[in-house]
Amino acid sequence: MANKTLLTKRVSFSASHRYWNKDWSEEKNLEVFGKCTSPHGHGHNYVLETTVQGDIDPETGMIINLYDLKPIILDALADFDHKFLNEDNPAFADLIPTTENIAKVLWDVISEKLESHGCRLHRIRLYETPELYVDYWRDK
Amino acid sequence: MANKTLLTKRVSFSASHRYWNKDWSEEKNLEVFGKCTSPHGHGHNYVLETTVQGDIDPETGMIINLYDLKPIILDALADFDHKFLNEDNPAFADLIPTTENIAKVLWDVISEKLESHGCRLHRIRLYETPELYVDYWRDK
Amino acid sequence: MANKTLLTKRVSFSASHRYWNKDWSEEKNLEVFGKCTSPHGHGHNYVLETTVQGDIDPETGMIINLYDLKPIILDALADFDHKFLNEDNPAFADLIPTTENIAKVLWDVISEKLESHGCRLHRIRLYETPELYVDYWRDK
Amino acid sequence: MANKTLLTKRVSFSASHRYWNKDWSEEKNLEVFGKCTSPHGHGHNYVLETTVQGDIDPETGMIINLYDLKPIILDALADFDHKFLNEDNPAFADLIPTTENIAKVLWDVISEKLESHGCRLHRIRLYETPELYVDYWRDK
Amino acid sequence: MANKTLLTKRVSFSASHRYWNKDWSEEKNLEVFGKCTSPHGHGHNYVLETTVQGDIDPETGMIINLYDLKPIILDALADFDHKFLNEDNPAFADLIPTTENIAKVLWDVISEKLESHGCRLHRIRLYETPELYVDYWRDK
Amino acid sequence: MANKTLLTKRVSFSASHRYWNKDWSEEKNLEVFGKCTSPHGHGHNYVLETTVQGDIDPETGMIINLYDLKPIILDALADFDHKFLNEDNPAFADLIPTTENIAKVLWDVISEKLESHGCRLHRIRLYETPELYVDYWRDK
Repeated sequence: MANKTLLTKRVSFSASHRYWNKDWSEEKNLEVFGKCTSPHGHGHNYVLETTVQGDIDPETGMIINLYDLKPIILDALADFDHKFLNEDNPAFADLIPTTENIAKVLWDVISEKLESHGCRLHRIRLYETPELYVDYWRDK
Repeated sequence: MANKTLLTKRVSFSASHRYWNKDWSEEKNLEVFGKCTSPHGHGHNYVLETTVQGDIDPETGMIINLYDLKPIILDALADFDHKFLNEDNPAFADLIPTTENIAKVLWDVISEKLESHGCRLHRIRLYETPELYVDYWRDK
Repeated sequence: MANKTLLTKRVSFSASHRYWNKDWSEEKNLEVFGKCTSPHGHGHNYVLETTVQGDIDPETGMIINLYDLKPIILDALADFDHKFLNEDNPAFADLIPTTENIAKVLWDVISEKLESHGCRLHRIRLYETPELYVDYWRDK
Repeated sequence: MANKTLLTKRVSFSASHRYWNKDWSEEKNLEVFGKCTSPHGHGHNYVLETTVQGDIDPETGMIINLYDLKPIILDALADFDHKFLNEDNPAFADLIPTTENIAKVLWDVISEKLESHGCRLHRIRLYETPELYVDYWRDK
Repeated sequence: MANKTLLTKRVSFSASHRYWNKDWSEEKNLEVFGKCTSPHGHGHNYVLETTVQGDIDPETGMIINLYDLKPIILDALADFDHKFLNEDNPAFADLIPTTENIAKVLWDVISEKLESHGCRLHRIRLYETPELYVDYWRDK
Repeated sequence: MANKTLLTKRVSFSASHRYWNKDWSEEKNLEVFGKCTSPHGHGHNYVLETTVQGDIDPETGMIINLYDLKPIILDALADFDHKFLNEDNPAFADLIPTTENIAKVLWDVISEKLESHGCRLHRIRLYETPELYVDYWRDK
C-alpha cells in the first residue's frame, strides 16, 4: 500500500499571442483560427498550476519548500510574463502559442529546473481563461 | 516516454430537477432525499467540464479546435439547459437526475459526438454547486 | 466626520422559476422571455448578499453578531430554498420571479426581521448566476 | 421613501495593451511603467461589469431585458475583444490604455447606446485581473 | 456633470485571532462568541480591498501608480500578515480583532500613508471568508 | 469497459498553525520556514475536498448520500475547525502541521469513517489558500 502526495502551486501571468500558420493562406488561417488571427495579438491572464510529486520530508513536513519552488516557477515565466509570445519568446518562433503548446514548453523548462531538488514534475495545468485549460505531462 | 495532453472546456447551464423514487413510499422518499423531493423541483447553475484527450496537431497546435468542440457541447446540452430534467428530458423518464446520473448521460451523448473528430472523451466533470461535483468516465 | 460600517453575509440557495406574463399571448411571452418560458421552469444556485448597516458595538466589536444574522437570513429563505418559486412561494402568485422581483421580496422580508436587532438593512444583492446580479434598497 | 434597483451584467473579453507616453524618454517610461512598456504589449482577460439603473417594468419584472442589454455590451466591445488596444482601437491613438482610461471609453460608448432603452448607465466596473479593478461613472 | 474614478487593489494576508471580552465571564464570552473563543485562536486568509479615489493623471492615465500603491498596502499589512492579531499587533491590545475592527484599524493606517500621494482612501473592504466581508470608510 | 464515478464534496474550515522543528535551532527554523515560524501562529480558510469512489446505487442514483457524507466530514473536522493545530490537535504533537501533513491526517480519519458506508475514499485535496493545495491518497 503506497501513499502518494502531490503539491500544486498556482501562479498568474499576463501575455498576448496570435494564432497564425505561416504555411497557410490568410483565408485558411481566418477559417481555422477566426478572431485569434488578429495581427497584433490579444491577451490573457494565464494561470499556471505546477504540480510536484515527492515524498514528505519528515524534517520539514513538505514535499518541497515554497521558498524553493516559487523562484523556479517565476524564473521559468520570465520569458512569458508581460510578453507577446510570438515575438518575444524564442520557443514560439516556429510553434503556434496555443494553450497546448505553451503548456508543453513550460513542462520542458520547469521539469529540468526541478531535477536538482529531489522531486519531479507531475503535471502542468494551464488556464487560458477560467473556462479553458490544458493538462500536460510526460510519463517515464 | 509518452506525453499526454488534455483539453478541458467549461460550459454553464441552468436546469431544475427533483429526487423521487417511484417505487418508494412518500415517507421513504422524504427520509432519503429530504428537501430534494419538493414536488415541482428546484434548480442549479450546473457547470460542465468536458475533457478531451488527443495528440497536438502540428498544423494548428491544438488537440481539437474550440470552434469544433463548443458546438458539440452546446448541442449535447440542448435537452438540459433551461429544462426541468424529470419532465423535459426523456433520459430521466426512469432515471433519477442526480449529479451522478446527469454526468453519465452527458458522457454517452458527448462521447458519441466526439468520435468523428479524431479525439476521445477523457472525463466528464459536473458541478451541481461550487461545493459538489461528480467525475465520470469509462475506460476501454 | 462620520464613519460608516457595513457588514455583508453571503448565503446560497437553490430555486427554480419560470418567466410568464399571464396577460400576454404565448407568442408574446416567447418573444420577450425566450427559453425562460419553459413550462416546468429551470433553476439557479442563487447567491444572496445581505448588507447591514450599524454602529460597531464596543463590547463585541460587531455591528451584528453572525449568530443573530444567519438565522434571520435562513428563516427568510425558507420559502425560497429548494422551491419552484412560481408554484411554491405565494409572493410570486401575481409577480414574475425575475432577479429584480426576488430581490425586492427578500428586502421586504429581511428588513422587517432586522428591525428588532438595532441595525438596518442597507442593501440586498442577488446573484442569479456569477455573471448577473441585482442590487435593491430603499432610502428613507 | 424611494426604492432603487440596479442590474449588473458581467462579460469577459481578451485584449492586449502597452503603457507608453510618447512625450517621455524611454528611460522615463521604464521608470514609471516598468514591464508594462514591453514593446509588443501583453494581455488580460478583462471582465466588464455594466450596471444599469431604472424602474422595474411591471409587465416584465425587469429593468431591462437581457436580450436587449447583452447585444449593446457585445457591440460596444467589438473594438476591444481580441484586439491590441494601442494599435487596433482608435480611441487609444493618443490615450494610454490603462484600466482607468478603458473604463472611461467604455462608459462613453455604452451610456450612449443605452439612452434609447429608457434606462441609464449607473457604473462601469472593469477588472484587469481578479486583483485589480476600476469603477467609473458620471453624475448628472 | 462630474466624473468619478475609483481604483481597487486586492491583497491577501493570513492571520489568526480570538474573540474575547476581558470584562466578561468565560460563560458570557462563550454565549456571545461561541467557537471563536478558542484560547489559542484560529485563522483566515483575509482579502483586503483598498479603494482609492482621485483624478486620472493625463500623463500616466492612472489615479495612482500600482508601483506606489502596492508598497503602501504591504507596509500597512506588516503587523497583520502571518500574525496572531491579539498577541502580535498592538492595535488589538484592548480592541477585539473582529472584521469590523480590523477594517477600521487598516483604514487609519492606509489613509494616513496615502495622503502624501495626492489621492484619498475611499473605502476599505475586508473579507474574512468569501462569505463574509465588512466595508469601512469615513466621510469628511 | 469499466465505468468510474467519483463524487467530491468541498467543505471549508478555519484554523491556525505554526511551522517549527523542535530539533532545530531558532536560526535554522527561521532560515527554512521564514515568517511561518511566528510564535503564536497565523491562519487560513482551508478548503477540504473529499473525493469518494463507488458504484451508483440504482435506487438512489448516488454513490453516497450527502446526508451521510457531510456528517462524516464535519465530524472529522471537529479537531481542526477554529483550532490552533499545534496546540489543540493531538495529531500534531510531534508532526509539523504543513498542508501535506494535515492532508495525511485527514485521510486517516475520513477513510476509516467511510468504511462502514460501502464506498472508499479516493483522494483528499486540501487548499491552504486558493493558490496552494495538496493531494493525498493511498493505493491498495
